[in-house]
Amino acid sequence: MIQVAVFGYGTVGSGVVEVIDRNNSYVSDNSGDKVNVKYILDLRDFPGDPNESKIVHDVDIIVNDPEVSIVCETMGGVGAAYKFTKAALEKGKSVCSSNKELVAKHGAELIQVAKAHGCAYLFEASVGGGIPVLRTLTTALTAERITKIAGILNGTTNFILTKMEQDGANFSNTLKIAQDLGYAEKDPTADIEGHDTARKISILSDIMSGHFVDSDAVSTEGITKITSSDITIASKAGYSIKLLGLASRNDDDSVGTMVAPFLVAKSHPLAGVNDVFNAVFVTGNMLGETMYYGKGAGKLATASAVVADVIDAARKGSSCMYKGWDDTPVKTASLSDSEYRFFVRCSSGDAEAVKAKFAGAGESITAGSETGFITEKMTQSGFDAVASELGIRILGSIRVYE
Amino acid sequence: MIQVAVFGYGTVGSGVVEVIDRNNSYVSDNSGDKVNVKYILDLRDFPGDPNESKIVHDVDIIVNDPEVSIVCETMGGVGAAYKFTKAALEKGKSVCSSNKELVAKHGAELIQVAKAHGCAYLFEASVGGGIPVLRTLTTALTAERITKIAGILNGTTNFILTKMEQDGANFSNTLKIAQDLGYAEKDPTADIEGHDTARKISILSDIMSGHFVDSDAVSTEGITKITSSDITIASKAGYSIKLLGLASRNDDDSVGTMVAPFLVAKSHPLAGVNDVFNAVFVTGNMLGETMYYGKGAGKLATASAVVADVIDAARKGSSCMYKGWDDTPVKTASLSDSEYRFFVRCSSGDAEAVKAKFAGAGESITAGSETGFITEKMTQSGFDAVASELGIRILGSIRVYE
Repeated sequence: MIQVAVFGYGTVGSGVVEVIDRNNSYVSDNSGDKVNVKYILDLRDFPGDPNESKIVHDVDIIVNDPEVSIVCETMGGVGAAYKFTKAALEKGKSVCSSNKELVAKHGAELIQVAKAHGCAYLFEASVGGGIPVLRTLTTALTAERITKIAGILNGTTNFILTKMEQDGANFSNTLKIAQDLGYAEKDPTADIEGHDTARKISILSDIMSGHFVDSDAVSTEGITKITSSDITIASKAGYSIKLLGLASRNDDDSVGTMVAPFLVAKSHPLAGVNDVFNAVFVTGNMLGETMYYGKGAGKLATASAVVADVIDAARKGSSCMYKGWDDTPVKTASLSDSEYRFFVRCSSGDAEAVKAKFAGAGESITAGSETGFITEKMTQSGFDAVASELGIRILGSIRVYE
Repeated sequence: MIQVAVFGYGTVGSGVVEVIDRNNSYVSDNSGDKVNVKYILDLRDFPGDPNESKIVHDVDIIVNDPEVSIVCETMGGVGAAYKFTKAALEKGKSVCSSNKELVAKHGAELIQVAKAHGCAYLFEASVGGGIPVLRTLTTALTAERITKIAGILNGTTNFILTKMEQDGANFSNTLKIAQDLGYAEKDPTADIEGHDTARKISILSDIMSGHFVDSDAVSTEGITKITSSDITIASKAGYSIKLLGLASRNDDDSVGTMVAPFLVAKSHPLAGVNDVFNAVFVTGNMLGETMYYGKGAGKLATASAVVADVIDAARKGSSCMYKGWDDTPVKTASLSDSEYRFFVRCSSGDAEAVKAKFAGAGESITAGSETGFITEKMTQSGFDAVASELGIRILGSIRVYE
């Protein structure tokens, strides 16, 4: 019998219990022994819940029970979750986590603690929900030098952008719909300002580079300034607008990271990733381009990824750990010298004058009283100089992904 | 030092040597020791080739060399490749294969031989080239009951269908272009008649079900009957035409398999898989829908998958083997009771009369002198009955994927 404890009986935690229960024959068969949830740690009681008898409020009961070999950490946050994870690992219990904030901040240390105690710290569910991208990077693309990762990593913002494109609606109304449907939280800041995506692209960059990439240092722009005109004009030009987390690795092993909305050509596979789905586009030096697509969030999809980690920990112990990263900060590449084409939106009356400042700009496309065009490739700093000169005459600008 | 031999110095075999050479630091680091190609088995000599000195013509030199621990089988075919693979496995050497024909035919036996001799038989490259789908199914989706797999598994046919859609060209001219570009072989039968896809979907079904799925028994239709009218009308209706390998697993564990062209809605992620790219769409009972996308063929992409297997074999030996399948034939589900919507093409003058035979059929769309429409959902046998009555008045029919 493999005894498991779940830290946090919220959406993902209750999903973990459900997956282990409903798919027990697969989970146990693949683990090599019967898997059972012995404890659920939560501050709350759950009177009437079928798992009521498993609820405990004291983490020490779990940490000190030698029968428990694996813990699922689905609490979130970096306070108690950090303390409890470390305590469990120090007792040799493998921890399987969906907590991206904790992994982004303390992953390097917790991987070391796990190694020192002969157990595993796994966190497939922390990036891309049910998409097995961390396992793919670390166990399948092992013959590759990964040079670039581009991900649609946040379901809330992708739902909003998809809905804005389909319905021609504006941002704030669409956010309201997403909140009513439960796809956006009451305080949606972490999603719509790009912080959630920044944490996920930093974890992917940690794995790509082998060094620590600070999520707070990722250049991050959200989607709050995107208007329905941006989306309409981009669509007429053959593009969808997507919030991307980007990481690129240069020949000198420096890594550039960024979170921002981008125009993505409709012929690109990332453009077809709609609603709450996520996808991670990975470029390797031999493989070329690959993409991994699936539900980026949601109770059962995320829980399935946590339970896949439980199975790996049960079967292989510490040897199944993702290749980790060390505490040394990665060498950071400056993005100001990077070149992009830029989509520029201005009032239709001013369009010719604005466009004249960007030699070689493409066709003008008008929607209502506004007009947009796409510049030639130019450096970020070159664009910033022209944009600063034009000031508020530029109503909006978005980079083109290529 | 991990000494490797390569069986077959053709496209994939020379790619394996190149990946091990160019990415040696990654390959060796991930393998835990320096990886070196000691022998290359081929009937030919390669005077002037940088690896000329490694070429041997006698398999026994390799099989009897205790230094060689891993063999890459990139010969193809089921004759010598079968004999040599078995001989290597019986000497405890792991074999990493790109040979889908051999895996589809003798996979169950070779997996058993590997297990009996403490080594591994791995074949990630045999399905979807560089897309790590076998590893994903067997090591990442372990908490899932997989219920459905739909794949674009053949680059040649996908290139032809993409090109026909983009250029409005007919099948035979486009096949010629594909041959000129090296994307189709002189004898393209195995690709265009769907046999290659049948082998790949049968390997995926083997893994999904745990039992033997005979690729010769997969109901297989190719793309030779697809006309430019089919593609034009389907496109106007919002669909792309794709050759799909399908496998579905029912509640009683019976498995239905099929290879055929399908209309795929342009909003579906599979519709955006163009040119020589492949993708595998996998549905799990908890995860929902996931997709894995990348180069389905090509020297370096396929070789990278073979070398990822080498790394796994070096690091983990027999414990890294994919969950195999046994020799017991799978319980087969009949497809004649399955329900589909059908796209029907006929001459424009006859369209109203033909359509009258299909109650509830959708809008008629005309291209040149031909007209197409999509029926309501009906059983395969129900459709066959009406089609047989109409005879040659139906110029073409294609199922709709949903």
